[in-house]
Amino acid sequence: MTTRPHTPLLDTVEYPADLRKLDKSQLRQLSDELRAEMIDAVGTTGGHLGSGLGVVELTTAIHYVFNTPEDKLVWDVGHQCYPHKILTGRRDRIRTLRQGGGLSGFTKRAESEYDPFGAAHSSTSISAALGFAMANKMLGKPGRGIAVIGDGAMSAGMAYEAMNNAEAAGNRLIVILNDNDMSIAPPVGGLSAYLARTVSSSEYLGLRSLASRLSKKLSRKVHDGLEKAEEYARGMVTGGTLFEELGFYYVGPIDGHNLDHLIPVLENVRDSEQGPVLIHVVTQKGKGYAPAENSADKYHGVAKFDVVTGEQKKSSGGPPAYQNVFGETLAKIADTDPRICAITAAMPSGTGVDKFAKAHPDKAFDVGIAEQHGVTFAAGLAAQGMRPFAAIYSTFLQRAYDQVVHDVAIQNLAVRFAIDRAGLVGADGCTHAGAFDIAYLATLPNMVVMAAADEAELAHMTYTAAEYDDGPIAFRYPRGSGTGVEIPEQLQKLEIGKGRIVREGTKVAILSLGARLEEAKKAADQLEAKGLSTTVADMRFAKPLDTELIEKLMRGHEVVVTIEEGAVGGLGAHVLTFASDAGLTDAGLKVRTMRLPDVFQDQDDPVKQYDEAGLNAPHIVDTALKALRHNSAGVEEARA
Amino acid sequence: MTTRPHTPLLDTVEYPADLRKLDKSQLRQLSDELRAEMIDAVGTTGGHLGSGLGVVELTTAIHYVFNTPEDKLVWDVGHQCYPHKILTGRRDRIRTLRQGGGLSGFTKRAESEYDPFGAAHSSTSISAALGFAMANKMLGKPGRGIAVIGDGAMSAGMAYEAMNNAEAAGNRLIVILNDNDMSIAPPVGGLSAYLARTVSSSEYLGLRSLASRLSKKLSRKVHDGLEKAEEYARGMVTGGTLFEELGFYYVGPIDGHNLDHLIPVLENVRDSEQGPVLIHVVTQKGKGYAPAENSADKYHGVAKFDVVTGEQKKSSGGPPAYQNVFGETLAKIADTDPRICAITAAMPSGTGVDKFAKAHPDKAFDVGIAEQHGVTFAAGLAAQGMRPFAAIYSTFLQRAYDQVVHDVAIQNLAVRFAIDRAGLVGADGCTHAGAFDIAYLATLPNMVVMAAADEAELAHMTYTAAEYDDGPIAFRYPRGSGTGVEIPEQLQKLEIGKGRIVREGTKVAILSLGARLEEAKKAADQLEAKGLSTTVADMRFAKPLDTELIEKLMRGHEVVVTIEEGAVGGLGAHVLTFASDAGLTDAGLKVRTMRLPDVFQDQDDPVKQYDEAGLNAPHIVDTALKALRHNSAGVEEARA
Repeated sequence: MTTRPHTPLLDTVEYPADLRKLDKSQLRQLSDELRAEMIDAVGTTGGHLGSGLGVVELTTAIHYVFNTPEDKLVWDVGHQCYPHKILTGRRDRIRTLRQGGGLSGFTKRAESEYDPFGAAHSSTSISAALGFAMANKMLGKPGRGIAVIGDGAMSAGMAYEAMNNAEAAGNRLIVILNDNDMSIAPPVGGLSAYLARTVSSSEYLGLRSLASRLSKKLSRKVHDGLEKAEEYARGMVTGGTLFEELGFYYVGPIDGHNLDHLIPVLENVRDSEQGPVLIHVVTQKGKGYAPAENSADKYHGVAKFDVVTGEQKKSSGGPPAYQNVFGETLAKIADTDPRICAITAAMPSGTGVDKFAKAHPDKAFDVGIAEQHGVTFAAGLAAQGMRPFAAIYSTFLQRAYDQVVHDVAIQNLAVRFAIDRAGLVGADGCTHAGAFDIAYLATLPNMVVMAAADEAELAHMTYTAAEYDDGPIAFRYPRGSGTGVEIPEQLQKLEIGKGRIVREGTKVAILSLGARLEEAKKAADQLEAKGLSTTVADMRFAKPLDTELIEKLMRGHEVVVTIEEGAVGGLGAHVLTFASDAGLTDAGLKVRTMRLPDVFQDQDDPVKQYDEAGLNAPHIVDTALKALRHNSAGVEEARA
Repeated sequence: MTTRPHTPLLDTVEYPADLRKLDKSQLRQLSDELRAEMIDAVGTTGGHLGSGLGVVELTTAIHYVFNTPEDKLVWDVGHQCYPHKILTGRRDRIRTLRQGGGLSGFTKRAESEYDPFGAAHSSTSISAALGFAMANKMLGKPGRGIAVIGDGAMSAGMAYEAMNNAEAAGNRLIVILNDNDMSIAPPVGGLSAYLARTVSSSEYLGLRSLASRLSKKLSRKVHDGLEKAEEYARGMVTGGTLFEELGFYYVGPIDGHNLDHLIPVLENVRDSEQGPVLIHVVTQKGKGYAPAENSADKYHGVAKFDVVTGEQKKSSGGPPAYQNVFGETLAKIADTDPRICAITAAMPSGTGVDKFAKAHPDKAFDVGIAEQHGVTFAAGLAAQGMRPFAAIYSTFLQRAYDQVVHDVAIQNLAVRFAIDRAGLVGADGCTHAGAFDIAYLATLPNMVVMAAADEAELAHMTYTAAEYDDGPIAFRYPRGSGTGVEIPEQLQKLEIGKGRIVREGTKVAILSLGARLEEAKKAADQLEAKGLSTTVADMRFAKPLDTELIEKLMRGHEVVVTIEEGAVGGLGAHVLTFASDAGLTDAGLKVRTMRLPDVFQDQDDPVKQYDEAGLNAPHIVDTALKALRHNSAGVEEARA
């Protein structure tokens, strides 16, 4: 047992109302205790550490000054919400973070009225906060919308779209730019450079001059030429021109760890009649915990760790992560093919593009949190003869769906989509699950959709995609470690639209797409043990389907089960559509589709998640047995 | 027969190489002839007029100065590309624009090497041009990327993402901002206000001072403090600060109809070693054609018209357009429900939101070309108790897919999606077809997906959606006019997940979703005439499915045909998945799915498009007959 930190003041605060009873002079101590509590909790559970440590003072100050939950506080992404959870009635469960049945690692409406809007994907907060602000305006209710958004998240177009629409909300909208010069990886692009210039070119303003500027600014009614000149001159010193051009009142930069600055600025903005206001707060990711401050990624996401030393529990070795197999395979292919390049949207290590970039730094592009741009940029590269790989998680590729359709598929350009985090993803829960990509990609003409059953297959598919120049091609693979199979030195170019039979039987056929193959093989063993001869096929392709193989298996078996790590509309739907239209099922055939259930599943251990989803070996066995017992009247017959 | 305009100089120009042989002094005349030719052509075909008229001089100047097609010229959206088509070898077909077998109304790779990247959706050009620029850089090839993008298109986040990533391209990337203070409707938001201030606060620079500023600027190597101050001071006069903050060299504003200014500026930028450069060109939409200049929408999209008077061919009256039925119905509902509000992304009249806005101006939001923001903004509104309708075309909702998943569906927020332009759309072709929404929405948990069979159904669905507070709900409907049915005064709240039987039979069942219902009824008549008793059901819902109705129809008919105006993965796939998993087809049943074919179909008359797609009444009849003749061995039997 470790000793919990000593937190006498924090112990008196369950909700923000308790916090507001404190004297301002106590907030420093409260923040220190909050930080200690958070470090201890994340030491127990693992999770996002650096982001939360950076906003301890900001969280305290916001809840102190604003009237949450009536004022709607929207944390962008939600990585940084642990201190917020501790202060809003959830401290008792803070050591259940990201575990099955526990608190979500992100904000979540179902958890608390203090989470008015859930998050997990980046850059949504300004739009949502604007929605709250405008709804209250129309309904004649009090309450502001307050978005807290990181500088990394500001690189996404969606944040810009929202900024561009904010003016109508007036003083009901406050955007707090949490500038820590980091998203998950160091940020990229023009905006980041702009913010860096802003911060480096200006000293933090003293409290007196800040307050005076602020009140002057927020009471300003008319832009005349002189004021405009003054504004630009000020912009030059304090850097807000870009935001002011978009219609915001800009305040900052402010030291986000100095409560003596934060509190009066927030009060001033709260009481202002002008708006919308953007407050530029500078924080340090990992603040107040030396191991985090000294780490390159500021302990963005950590495993359980020792609070004293900061040492993280190591994983037990074992097979390589899929992302690294992809990144290293691609690097190897690129050694002899100068057309290969890779694009990541702010996820260099999550996608394995870092491994590629190490070998081919001039061919790797981190576009920031900008999936839309990333995909169309890749389309432009492909149109000019490069062989681009857009390495984007399944859930984040949703951000670029129109670009996949309009810029890639319609033009039949050979963009390669390396889709990581396909299927269920464990602790990150439903917001990060890769559930829909088979359905949303396989419906598109020209698209090829593959899924890797293991890491050797992933290597082959990476090579196959590299060599395929006829149009777009996607390959999906799970989060986490491979199965431990050997990765052959010699990569194979797979035949497009052809599956493979993994084992042959006569009664039950399991058509597997992707990494359920292991479970399918286990199920086949169990079925064989019951005397039911079972075929297992690895379909490899959701599109184009291996229609020859499907027809053969349907004609040769009593029961056909499809299984995939995706939602309805994927492999099963496509197999059935083909089979039905071809008349293969006219005379009767028991086909069953196994797929993710029609719910958003909460976080848990992945094996448990697949158990809950009903996609493990016992469920396959059960599905096949039930189908066999099903009589032609549509009724399940009694067990033999 | 009308007389073609007299164009002696234009007649000598088939390709840009011909243009480059002319003396600069001849370009004014060439532009005038080009404008006359374009007006005449669009008078014949209808199409996008105002945008093209605004860029006649710009098009001439770009092809004169730059080395197209080696320099890759990417027109954003493509509305404005008709003069470009005339100058790049397609004048002979310019009077086939937007017609079946004719030229596309947008840029299209398949048409010409001068169209290096197709468009039709907005705001993709900078990303694509950056892709060309970087590919050439990596491949060691010459050639710049040149994007021409309107001020309206700049409101989309994707353009901002691309700007934010542009710096690496250096002088290989040129962005020409075509600022006509219009997208399709007048533009909205902070950026638009910013550009207006920029243009109004500055005079166009004289050529001499422009050139001197330009050469000074583009040869500048170092930013020191003094230069920065100077830059801001300049920014104040000429307005480029926002773009310079993002890493661009800003040039402008320049009069986009003055060739004496355009040509030397473009030459200067072409020869510059610095970049990326943004050239801010101010143009007038509809320029040079009085009826267009004087029209509110500047003849953005027109029917065939009389060149002399500008009078457009009127449509023949007839049933109301679906979009107007939606807008007017929503306005009526909102008369008694203060929670109703509507969001459009720069398409107020295309979506019918203009009709709603006329009655309820404070409840209508035009967010600009910003679908991502629009959907999450709607989610925020819903979370705070409003009843928001996001009225977005099917094809453009692809832009907001992640927001639909992450911000709406996961949180089960009651955002209403009014999805216009579902199915095939005629002259706009495949880029605007609404083919995928059933598949990409029905795969999502919590989502309700309806499709309207006619305009009365649309009115009922609008009301049903308004009254449904349990989660997200979408309803799709076609482009164009309704069927002419009466719209009942009393709107019905449809039962969620329930279809209706339109006519009852015993042998063939047609399960229709959406506006193919008319064809299904015609097909039923023809089948009855052949002695085949036919049921027609209007399923109304793709999700949740009316499983009771499906089971009843499957048990009571020999052949079941599903039909929908969408791609694979929609109604047919969901019906089959349910039926198969429930064992309804175990004993044999002939089910056939009819849907859009797995290709991107080119523009044509909609009836012809559906004929090509095989979704008209004769195809339904044929499908049913073929199924009936199909024997249990999977072979079609000889006709009786």
